[in-house]
Amino acid sequence: MSQADNPPKTVTACVLIIGNEILSGRTQDANLAFLAKGLNEAGIRLREARVVPDDADIIVSTVNEVRRSFDYVFTTGGIGPTHDDITSASIAEAFAVPLIVHPEAKRLLEGHYPPGGLNEARLRMAQVPDGAVLLPNPISRAPGFRIDNVFVLPGVPQIMQAIFSELKHRLQGGAAVLSRSISCTLSEGAIAKDLGELQARYADLEIGSYPYFRRSDFGVTLVIRGTDRERIGAAVEELKTLVRALGGDPQEGQAED
Amino acid sequence: MSQADNPPKTVTACVLIIGNEILSGRTQDANLAFLAKGLNEAGIRLREARVVPDDADIIVSTVNEVRRSFDYVFTTGGIGPTHDDITSASIAEAFAVPLIVHPEAKRLLEGHYPPGGLNEARLRMAQVPDGAVLLPNPISRAPGFRIDNVFVLPGVPQIMQAIFSELKHRLQGGAAVLSRSISCTLSEGAIAKDLGELQARYADLEIGSYPYFRRSDFGVTLVIRGTDRERIGAAVEELKTLVRALGGDPQEGQAED
Repeated sequence: MSQADNPPKTVTACVLIIGNEILSGRTQDANLAFLAKGLNEAGIRLREARVVPDDADIIVSTVNEVRRSFDYVFTTGGIGPTHDDITSASIAEAFAVPLIVHPEAKRLLEGHYPPGGLNEARLRMAQVPDGAVLLPNPISRAPGFRIDNVFVLPGVPQIMQAIFSELKHRLQGGAAVLSRSISCTLSEGAIAKDLGELQARYADLEIGSYPYFRRSDFGVTLVIRGTDRERIGAAVEELKTLVRALGGDPQEGQAED
Repeated sequence: MSQADNPPKTVTACVLIIGNEILSGRTQDANLAFLAKGLNEAGIRLREARVVPDDADIIVSTVNEVRRSFDYVFTTGGIGPTHDDITSASIAEAFAVPLIVHPEAKRLLEGHYPPGGLNEARLRMAQVPDGAVLLPNPISRAPGFRIDNVFVLPGVPQIMQAIFSELKHRLQGGAAVLSRSISCTLSEGAIAKDLGELQARYADLEIGSYPYFRRSDFGVTLVIRGTDRERIGAAVEELKTLVRALGGDPQEGQAED
């Protein structure tokens, strides 16, 4: 079988958001959508996300479940210097390896703080599970780390994004997911039947229907996703035709996913 | 044992966000933080959230796992009229009951659309698992429903919020979680050691540390959560004292969770 005959491999990921502040509603998560888009660009399908509290037993069991079910796992949160930052220790426990002070991480932190500033609490940010590889932090604070297929990132969005942007290009993705979106002012209920039939004819693509409600009008945005640009193009043409047949005016938007 | 001797019961919840559009990064979820705050007000602890794709097998297995692990489950998304709206059918499968057209839901929809407007696709929004109870939608579109401890809500935030606000007062919560927050311009690393010792002395409370970075300054917000107002007050006073001892100026914020 030639390489061209191989079906594109699907590479999957799970995001694990660690933090009581998300579950209490204090903090609106901003990391999931960023990681979702970045993974998509790398040809990796985000298939699940979980938000869990700062509870070691729950983190350990969840990490052990998802690292076996997905190609990649990305965690956010819980790698700072305070008592509620228990992610690194929990990941070490999940992998049944000791938590060590990483010499290079310690050196990075020593360079970041004024002399004498690297106290015991801050030194916790140099602790990683034995065998972990550091993930460079281009804005020069504590690094993230990777162990096996688990990437451990901070929760502060600016820092998480900087680290992820550095590592993204080294991820092994499968076929990239392409998408096109068509909006119209028809209601979902008016187009649903034809849309279901279109989806049935294009079983290799994924057609999503997302209603919108604005002050001035309402309507629906239809997103067609897949890996084959020509098939997506064909489905888009059929979709535009059926929108027009129902009296709508199809507007193509930016590919949004 | 008198009622006053009973420890406050902890009532738990899991939120299940259903939709490819969240996992693709197309849509920024806005429902989790809203539900988290609302549940908190009702004395219910949100202990986990999951985002899963529009995949019946995954929805069924996830619902069956979480409805047995938590007192309440709230799902959002996937109850509209289009082919990708598979939540109601998946919940019926999870409970091993037939999917039926609910007479009252059908009547509500008939009243909402112009004569003849309730087509086959829209009628899907009247389908619920046999035995489900409708959740009134005060902005007069398709209702949500409840079956056992699972509450099924739409994904569109305005509609989800309206339905949840109606049902919230009928939830059976435990002891309400109270919180107070103190901010200061100290760094997390400077306060971490003392903060860990404070947490150790107040093991019945939960102290969270959340760094912030603004254009003009940086610092940390410390949130103390618990069910006993006096204990929280005592911990806050100790916290203010230790912030001042480190050269900081403690500012009490609004209770944010």
